[in-house]
Amino acid sequence: MSRGVFISFEGGEGGGKTTQMTRLAGFLKQKSISVIETREPGGTPQGEDLRSLLVRGDPGRWQPRSELLMMTAARVEHVYHIIEPALAAGKWVLCDRFVDSTFVYQGLAGQVGIDEVSVLHRSAVGGLMPDLTLLLDLPAEAGLKRAATRGGEARFEKKGDVFHRKLRDGFLELAAAYPDRICKIDAAQSFDGVWQEIEAVIVNRFGL
Amino acid sequence: MSRGVFISFEGGEGGGKTTQMTRLAGFLKQKSISVIETREPGGTPQGEDLRSLLVRGDPGRWQPRSELLMMTAARVEHVYHIIEPALAAGKWVLCDRFVDSTFVYQGLAGQVGIDEVSVLHRSAVGGLMPDLTLLLDLPAEAGLKRAATRGGEARFEKKGDVFHRKLRDGFLELAAAYPDRICKIDAAQSFDGVWQEIEAVIVNRFGL
Repeated sequence: MSRGVFISFEGGEGGGKTTQMTRLAGFLKQKSISVIETREPGGTPQGEDLRSLLVRGDPGRWQPRSELLMMTAARVEHVYHIIEPALAAGKWVLCDRFVDSTFVYQGLAGQVGIDEVSVLHRSAVGGLMPDLTLLLDLPAEAGLKRAATRGGEARFEKKGDVFHRKLRDGFLELAAAYPDRICKIDAAQSFDGVWQEIEAVIVNRFGL
Repeated sequence: MSRGVFISFEGGEGGGKTTQMTRLAGFLKQKSISVIETREPGGTPQGEDLRSLLVRGDPGRWQPRSELLMMTAARVEHVYHIIEPALAAGKWVLCDRFVDSTFVYQGLAGQVGIDEVSVLHRSAVGGLMPDLTLLLDLPAEAGLKRAATRGGEARFEKKGDVFHRKLRDGFLELAAAYPDRICKIDAAQSFDGVWQEIEAVIVNRFGL
């Protein structure tokens, strides 16, 4: 059996990652592809416990370096229990955020540095990277406006405009640095417009 | 104002670290030394949240590498909010477990490796080490027997005899490698016997 395909969805808050991921999962299932949908931080009971600590409370509750360590701990469990077994079984894994979010949220905007995130990612999960990353790009202000209509998990959303502009710049920097892996999608379009771009990328890239 | 003194208490389960630490705190206070007592994992609200995740549940709930990352995240908050400010203010810090436990529990017994713990400790908290470490040494079986009378936080205690013998060997290895910093105390003695050894070490080392 050939190894599955690992696709991550990335971008700032309010870009529509979750809904587009669900739509892609439906599209793949129609083509009889076995798919799992998962998310970070989270994806395992252990990771969801860490997520609860990370996404609630005051923006300054955790230092960025602590966030990095907790995100990576959650990722260790996620890769070990969920992602690697699924890929090994030939499944496609769709993941709402992966290490690019850590590069950008903690490494760049949180000022821990890209190198430290990178070193930790190698030691923790062997440096596993997605085969394709769909970056749903949106100006920070527009994304935050959309995200504000959601409740609950708002700790990162509360970090302020400057932080969120750094996030967007960071994601765009990564997309420029890794053009073969990261595909930028204009998320300011309608939901259907975004989906059509994603569908085209997937069809072209994987010959579906 | 001169910098305070940082003393950690280490050893396997049931060695009496907590009670001896309380006694040392009382002894120092009688000498008008300003002391704080703290513990790892924990010591801050953030760290105590991580502690709750770490010390409960099945022994295999977390992989040793995830434990390492979470212990280190808790330590980042602890050093930043509690330990460093106290030392800078001239206070003595008594800490129930510090990085030696991470070396031994995750690095050696958990097989993550001493080097990975060490690299992470440097990047996370600048490699801060205690001025003195009191290792309360006890055969694993005796310690577990004592610890079994406590409730609740038993996840590490449930990891089995082989694991706990590795812990003891690991602590003894560290004590042999760092004889200037780590002072081994025979914890199989009576409570008063252990205390008298600790008192002698403290009086000699710090001229009290």
